[in-house]
Amino acid sequence: MKNICILGATGSIGTQTLDVIEREKDKFKLIAVSAKKSYDKIIDIISKFHPKYAVLMEEDSFIKVRDYCNNNNENTKILMGMEGLVYISTLEEVDMVVTSVVGMVGLLPTMKAIEKGKDIALANKETLVVAGEIIMKKAKEMGVSILPVDSEHGAIFQCLQGNKKSDIHKIILTASGGPFRGRKKETLLNVTSKEALKHPKWNMGRKISIDSATLMNKGLEVIEAHFLFDVDYDDIQVVVHPQSMVHSMIEYIDGSIMAQIASADMRLPIQYAMNYPKREKTLIDRVDFYKLKELTFEKPDMDTFIPLKLAYKAGKIGGSMPCILNAANEACVELFLEDKIKFLDIGNILKECMNKFKVVKDITLDIVIDTDKKVKKYVKEKYSNI
Amino acid sequence: MKNICILGATGSIGTQTLDVIEREKDKFKLIAVSAKKSYDKIIDIISKFHPKYAVLMEEDSFIKVRDYCNNNNENTKILMGMEGLVYISTLEEVDMVVTSVVGMVGLLPTMKAIEKGKDIALANKETLVVAGEIIMKKAKEMGVSILPVDSEHGAIFQCLQGNKKSDIHKIILTASGGPFRGRKKETLLNVTSKEALKHPKWNMGRKISIDSATLMNKGLEVIEAHFLFDVDYDDIQVVVHPQSMVHSMIEYIDGSIMAQIASADMRLPIQYAMNYPKREKTLIDRVDFYKLKELTFEKPDMDTFIPLKLAYKAGKIGGSMPCILNAANEACVELFLEDKIKFLDIGNILKECMNKFKVVKDITLDIVIDTDKKVKKYVKEKYSNI
Repeated sequence: MKNICILGATGSIGTQTLDVIEREKDKFKLIAVSAKKSYDKIIDIISKFHPKYAVLMEEDSFIKVRDYCNNNNENTKILMGMEGLVYISTLEEVDMVVTSVVGMVGLLPTMKAIEKGKDIALANKETLVVAGEIIMKKAKEMGVSILPVDSEHGAIFQCLQGNKKSDIHKIILTASGGPFRGRKKETLLNVTSKEALKHPKWNMGRKISIDSATLMNKGLEVIEAHFLFDVDYDDIQVVVHPQSMVHSMIEYIDGSIMAQIASADMRLPIQYAMNYPKREKTLIDRVDFYKLKELTFEKPDMDTFIPLKLAYKAGKIGGSMPCILNAANEACVELFLEDKIKFLDIGNILKECMNKFKVVKDITLDIVIDTDKKVKKYVKEKYSNI
Repeated sequence: MKNICILGATGSIGTQTLDVIEREKDKFKLIAVSAKKSYDKIIDIISKFHPKYAVLMEEDSFIKVRDYCNNNNENTKILMGMEGLVYISTLEEVDMVVTSVVGMVGLLPTMKAIEKGKDIALANKETLVVAGEIIMKKAKEMGVSILPVDSEHGAIFQCLQGNKKSDIHKIILTASGGPFRGRKKETLLNVTSKEALKHPKWNMGRKISIDSATLMNKGLEVIEAHFLFDVDYDDIQVVVHPQSMVHSMIEYIDGSIMAQIASADMRLPIQYAMNYPKREKTLIDRVDFYKLKELTFEKPDMDTFIPLKLAYKAGKIGGSMPCILNAANEACVELFLEDKIKFLDIGNILKECMNKFKVVKDITLDIVIDTDKKVKKYVKEKYSNI
């Protein structure tokens, strides 16, 4: 029996992780969950799973959940804020922390969990993007497994089984291309956030949907892959594959390519990471090659979708540059969702921030957290009122 | 340094194996080779690699090669016939036997090599088709690795690395579909052996080219996969994939499919089998996904290409039935190449033989060899003079 803590239990990945836990009750026990403010969803989780702890990031929601528990004889202990997150992710009894929060907020509790030797099922890209060096070094030191939960890195991880990292020639990271695949800049001038949120293949949260539309999501994944698999940026190739069936590949030195293929359903990589190194019975629809017909591949258009190009650049510069890029992007996505900036502004603001902020070569957790705040503040102040 | 014996060194696989050995001279030493009758090619090999032994199956060729060695101060010892094959495949100094002869002739020397504990790089399908049970049992007993050399089973073997056989949900065996893919029976009535020999993707020997055209080749591979990977026939699915880039796949119980992709070049599976478990630098063209465009998949037409359907049936019946099927097929291919029977006759004669000959449940090597002779004799006598 594995004891599980889920950071970000009410979002897309969190909900699907709960589905996996529910279907494999004999293998997993839910100890603790967290949410930003979705008190109703947390109450549902409490009444269904009765975890020992639940954390809310916002006070109103915290109070609502605490009152619910008091009034309904639920023994779940309710905590608040970052302190609560760190508390539940470092609990003695927790074996694995599923980090499925969105954005920078995942960094500190993940780091603290690693320091306590917990295995990490990582769905929070930003943690590795902004602090990959620090995280991977600490994980190695503590003998902790960082198990990727997103479909691409989960695929790469599967393609690596039974092989040696040193035999990797390159990683081939597939991308659906997002809702604006094939479109040129001039047709993207006035696209709305509503259009950008309509992903053709995956039903995801709002932040990651916008990142998919700009290809920034793939850029973050390139940086994540660099840290997770210790592969040079020049050996990570992004290939657009609109059917989202091949979730990524590894090409080995001998020219042989291992690819992982499955239906586009996040429960597979979640289940694989949680059960690793074992495989369990499927929760997803199987692929039928007699009905599948075709898989296609194409080159990403980095001149139109410049965030991907910028991510390569930021990754190669290293130090705090990926953090600058990520912070600027988080701020931009918020502004775009609030209709305060336009779609193509995102790339331009990212570029501006990468030029404006000074890169720190040797990063620490404090530098990363500080850089993140500074960049976000700059972007929001400058672009909020346009 | 691995000492290598190649049974069938002058055919397509044998020649490519020599290419691998030549490019990896520091890893492999050629000890012995054999050929049916291609004395000129064996002389080329001797003058280039100076193996200790060479075997010719036919006397005329044997004499020519022996005379050449005597006249040219080559120390290679020249042997003849099945006795010679068994002798070189069981030599004390040989580490690995590459079985790349075509047809039943590979069975005895392969079995004897296994009994002596030699690892086998197996490109000879018939060995497993006719005597899979005996071969795999002996290999297990002797702790011998049977490393598949053809592109499909080599792919499956790669997809299995880092996984457990017991987690296999099914094997997905890809097939190019051959030169007559998409055609119906009525258009195949009068196709010639010349047309059947024109394979769209692979440049192969004559026997295997005809087998590709009838889909018998895939049928033999289904039976081979059953024995190699210990998977039920109902869990082996043939999928036509005309681009021949995905060389086969394994679907695991969790719905995840591992696929192996590479250029259609036999030197990769040869190199992988010979170096296993290590990978070495590529000898082949790398795949470029930006140029690849599409991979397509379709259901095989087993009503037109009945040999594939018959192979499933023969495999499920087991015992000596696969041997009956294989012997009938070897005879039919010869007759078809001599224009003595028509393309569609092949399937009908296979069916006739499967009905005519009595199946022996518990096979021995003797029963297999005897069955093979009987069936071939029957087919040749009945159909040679039509």
